[in-house]
Amino acid sequence: MSRISYVNGAYVRHMDAVVHIDDRGYQFADAVYEGVTVRHGRMVDLEPHLDRLWRSMGELRIAAPMQRGPMRFVFREVIRRNRIENGFLYIQVSRGVARRDHAFPTTPVHSSLVVTLKRLDVDGVIRRAEKGVKAHTEPDIRWGRCDVKSTSLLPNILAKQAAKEKGGFEAVLVDTQGYVTEGSSTNMWIVRKDGVVQTRSTADNILPGITRATLLKIAAELQIKVVEEAFSLDAAKDAAEMFLSSSTGCATPIVELDGHMIGDGTPGPVAKRLVEAYRRYMDA
Amino acid sequence: MSRISYVNGAYVRHMDAVVHIDDRGYQFADAVYEGVTVRHGRMVDLEPHLDRLWRSMGELRIAAPMQRGPMRFVFREVIRRNRIENGFLYIQVSRGVARRDHAFPTTPVHSSLVVTLKRLDVDGVIRRAEKGVKAHTEPDIRWGRCDVKSTSLLPNILAKQAAKEKGGFEAVLVDTQGYVTEGSSTNMWIVRKDGVVQTRSTADNILPGITRATLLKIAAELQIKVVEEAFSLDAAKDAAEMFLSSSTGCATPIVELDGHMIGDGTPGPVAKRLVEAYRRYMDA
Repeated sequence: MSRISYVNGAYVRHMDAVVHIDDRGYQFADAVYEGVTVRHGRMVDLEPHLDRLWRSMGELRIAAPMQRGPMRFVFREVIRRNRIENGFLYIQVSRGVARRDHAFPTTPVHSSLVVTLKRLDVDGVIRRAEKGVKAHTEPDIRWGRCDVKSTSLLPNILAKQAAKEKGGFEAVLVDTQGYVTEGSSTNMWIVRKDGVVQTRSTADNILPGITRATLLKIAAELQIKVVEEAFSLDAAKDAAEMFLSSSTGCATPIVELDGHMIGDGTPGPVAKRLVEAYRRYMDA
Repeated sequence: MSRISYVNGAYVRHMDAVVHIDDRGYQFADAVYEGVTVRHGRMVDLEPHLDRLWRSMGELRIAAPMQRGPMRFVFREVIRRNRIENGFLYIQVSRGVARRDHAFPTTPVHSSLVVTLKRLDVDGVIRRAEKGVKAHTEPDIRWGRCDVKSTSLLPNILAKQAAKEKGGFEAVLVDTQGYVTEGSSTNMWIVRKDGVVQTRSTADNILPGITRATLLKIAAELQIKVVEEAFSLDAAKDAAEMFLSSSTGCATPIVELDGHMIGDGTPGPVAKRLVEAYRRYMDA
């Protein structure tokens, strides 16, 4: 069966899915996106993802390509046509196609909508979270609007690649003051030795992660104390536990950072509880 | 006659010029570009543009889509097929098409090459340079590798748009220390009251502009003293003259910045000499 994607009004074979070279997403990274985990055919946290997509479009003044209702329908249709139960739904909206000029098009253009779906081994994600991963630090050289989920991702991919070449699963981005900001595509958390969980505030030039928000709710239910405050790289290395969160990464423990063991080098009890609770949340 | 563009091996009608949605240029801004002015059918400063393109690809470890000789041939062929004498040749190279993952593709992919040409009123550019333009300052919130000419241009377009909405032709980007870095798509220069021309050093996280380099050579020939050193916004407002440079912008005087008159509010003698010399250089 062919993989099917949605591009600007049509469901097409993925191999035939194209956009015009003057799409501003291609020439200017003038686009926003979301990635939604599909679990047992159901989109996890769909409404918060749509909220964030609308916020991103609003911040960049990109017109919505359609209303939320029809967009939900497109997502469901892409899932149905691909017959995928567990997957990663990718949604990209760009400002649209216009003659190349830095400023926004002076005549209104229709924004572009691209939706793809690929298989995601969600059980594999859970297994990885039960085992933990290694990470490496990279300087955070991103721009000043990381709160907007845009496709301006070049610094992120360079950091991810650098971490990967050092044997890491993820890059831990550190600012010039020595504070951890985010991962290259994840939010970062530590469990301090006093048992308090700490993660950077979303007021502080980071992406407001959807899984981050869900984990905050889950932590509250589990009566785990969380503070939203920046932590330093030194604090991370000295922490009892460290973990990352993302839609496709659940709450994955980081057991080694720059070759330095975090805690005893195995997933700690707090991360384990969160992973288990998040798995139940996804399966509910 | 149809406008013709080159996309990955084929000369196609511009309206049919497309790339795959999994092109990493579309999803990650994982691409570099150049813009070359075509004057009387000749590409201005082609070799320095190719040098910089190769440097950008090297910095991001993007494989060259072809060697320089064949690439020059493609450029000439695009110019020939469009029958354009004065234009803007746009060249974009992306890492290529791969299943979406932040890290570089693990199996080698062929990089994508897109070349387009549009008419450019070069005489209009010269006339604008003889008249001068208004500009507005915007905070520089770009990433830490502005020396690479990548399509990660979202901060640039937001700055350009903001300046335009204030009635400006260009945004003058100012860092947190109050220093002018660049324009949104130009390099920035001042002529101090002591007659010395000053422009930021390319060692300082700015793009090494091709027209900037040509103007440095021209200035040396004209025995105009230039220092490559950062200048503050205050210094710009207090300067005798200010101008921007770019491949499509020549050496255009900025006669008003944030509503503040620069010099006497008209193009000054130094900028005028440079514009005239640059025009002769293009026409040579």
